[in-house]
Amino acid sequence: MKLITSRNNVLYREIRQLAGSAQARRKSARTILDGVHLCQAYLEYIGNPIFCVVNESSKNQPEIAEIFEASQVRGVSCIILRDFLYETVSQVEEGVGVLFVIEPPVYPVPEKMTQTAVLLDRIQDPGNLGSILRSASAAGIGDVFCSRGTAAAWSPRVLRAGMGAHFLVRIHENIDLEKLVDVSGVPVVAMVPTAKDRIYDFDLRQPLAWLFGHEGQGVSDTLQSKARVMLKIPHAGKQDSLNVAACAAVCFFEQLRQKAG
Amino acid sequence: MKLITSRNNVLYREIRQLAGSAQARRKSARTILDGVHLCQAYLEYIGNPIFCVVNESSKNQPEIAEIFEASQVRGVSCIILRDFLYETVSQVEEGVGVLFVIEPPVYPVPEKMTQTAVLLDRIQDPGNLGSILRSASAAGIGDVFCSRGTAAAWSPRVLRAGMGAHFLVRIHENIDLEKLVDVSGVPVVAMVPTAKDRIYDFDLRQPLAWLFGHEGQGVSDTLQSKARVMLKIPHAGKQDSLNVAACAAVCFFEQLRQKAG
Repeated sequence: MKLITSRNNVLYREIRQLAGSAQARRKSARTILDGVHLCQAYLEYIGNPIFCVVNESSKNQPEIAEIFEASQVRGVSCIILRDFLYETVSQVEEGVGVLFVIEPPVYPVPEKMTQTAVLLDRIQDPGNLGSILRSASAAGIGDVFCSRGTAAAWSPRVLRAGMGAHFLVRIHENIDLEKLVDVSGVPVVAMVPTAKDRIYDFDLRQPLAWLFGHEGQGVSDTLQSKARVMLKIPHAGKQDSLNVAACAAVCFFEQLRQKAG
Repeated sequence: MKLITSRNNVLYREIRQLAGSAQARRKSARTILDGVHLCQAYLEYIGNPIFCVVNESSKNQPEIAEIFEASQVRGVSCIILRDFLYETVSQVEEGVGVLFVIEPPVYPVPEKMTQTAVLLDRIQDPGNLGSILRSASAAGIGDVFCSRGTAAAWSPRVLRAGMGAHFLVRIHENIDLEKLVDVSGVPVVAMVPTAKDRIYDFDLRQPLAWLFGHEGQGVSDTLQSKARVMLKIPHAGKQDSLNVAACAAVCFFEQLRQKAG
């Protein structure tokens, strides 16, 4: 266990950079899990972080003490930051004082999709990406493939919105979706508001790859032409489209409903 | 038409305050619609804004010119801001230069709910609120009742996420939900992850009031005890809950699916 009291400490500066800079996260292939819930989920589903960091004044709060002790028992490097330092690295508003430094898990990209999966074509908004991961996870979907141009999945905002889903689905980033769709072993279903067919008329009990597109532009033309199926969620009002994360949730749970029979 | 060139102009200062301050919006009962899509939707579904404001360098762009001219023809006060002034009031990232100053429509609160409606108990996140409004609107739901403590529906962030839904549903703010539930003429369905019954086993073809709660705490105990029905969306994975906007979308479209038969 180590107490850091100075702004000049090298480790403190690394943590601050990881918390504040997407470039630093990319370069080091590390990220920050901020807050009790994410740290608990990481310990439960993945394993040991690189560092466990707490702020001095909340290290004895029961939930935080539990995470801190579990980390020590497992041999994780544990760090206490003076409060004025911790405040500069945590983005959790209520100042819950625990965070992990981790290396996001990297999974081998399957050569061919054979199970239900999610393909994300340039999803921009971190909140949308996190919500889609959370819904996919709740629906029992195993793999999410993100195109280049999709928001960085392991950023603090996406992690916050994902509520632990990051540790329950396999996230594949910077994927060439066109190539993946070309060799898909399952039907690829592009969600397109102008499609003729409704999700309710398609047999969703089979494994398939759900394809969702950019918030403004939708699924790219090339990907649409490669997808074997285009479906829509029929509307009742004048509103012309749904939020992409709302659309994804409707699709995943309609599939689950059909499967449950 | 009026060109404003100075930071000291009273009207400019009012607009800047409306754009940046929740308190100013509340006090004046006015808000800002920022960007082409919201302004077009307002003209189409509601009517005339108080002011139409464009930035000088983009006033001749076709979409913006069209909105500006339509406003002039309708007798709306039209204002051109020098670009350096406009930049301080617009939050649209790509700097699309048109905004409206409006008074949000206020609807009489029905004494009793008789149609399908949405009740929101302390929804905090502006993106969630906007997404719920958008999904409700796409599902043809007419009324959304927001408790005190729910995010301000007419803030720029909620408006942006709502994508015009604000003009297609009747939004009622600062509503005493307990009172409303007490006199409800339709079943009130509280969405609770620990409920026994699934949304698929309940007859959703009837008019009902969907009740969704706070992102962390869910529907309050009092409201749960007053609601006549508690339902859940069954999950398949270890993820313990859905994002509230994702949950709402699943509910609204399951209702629509059942109604379509």
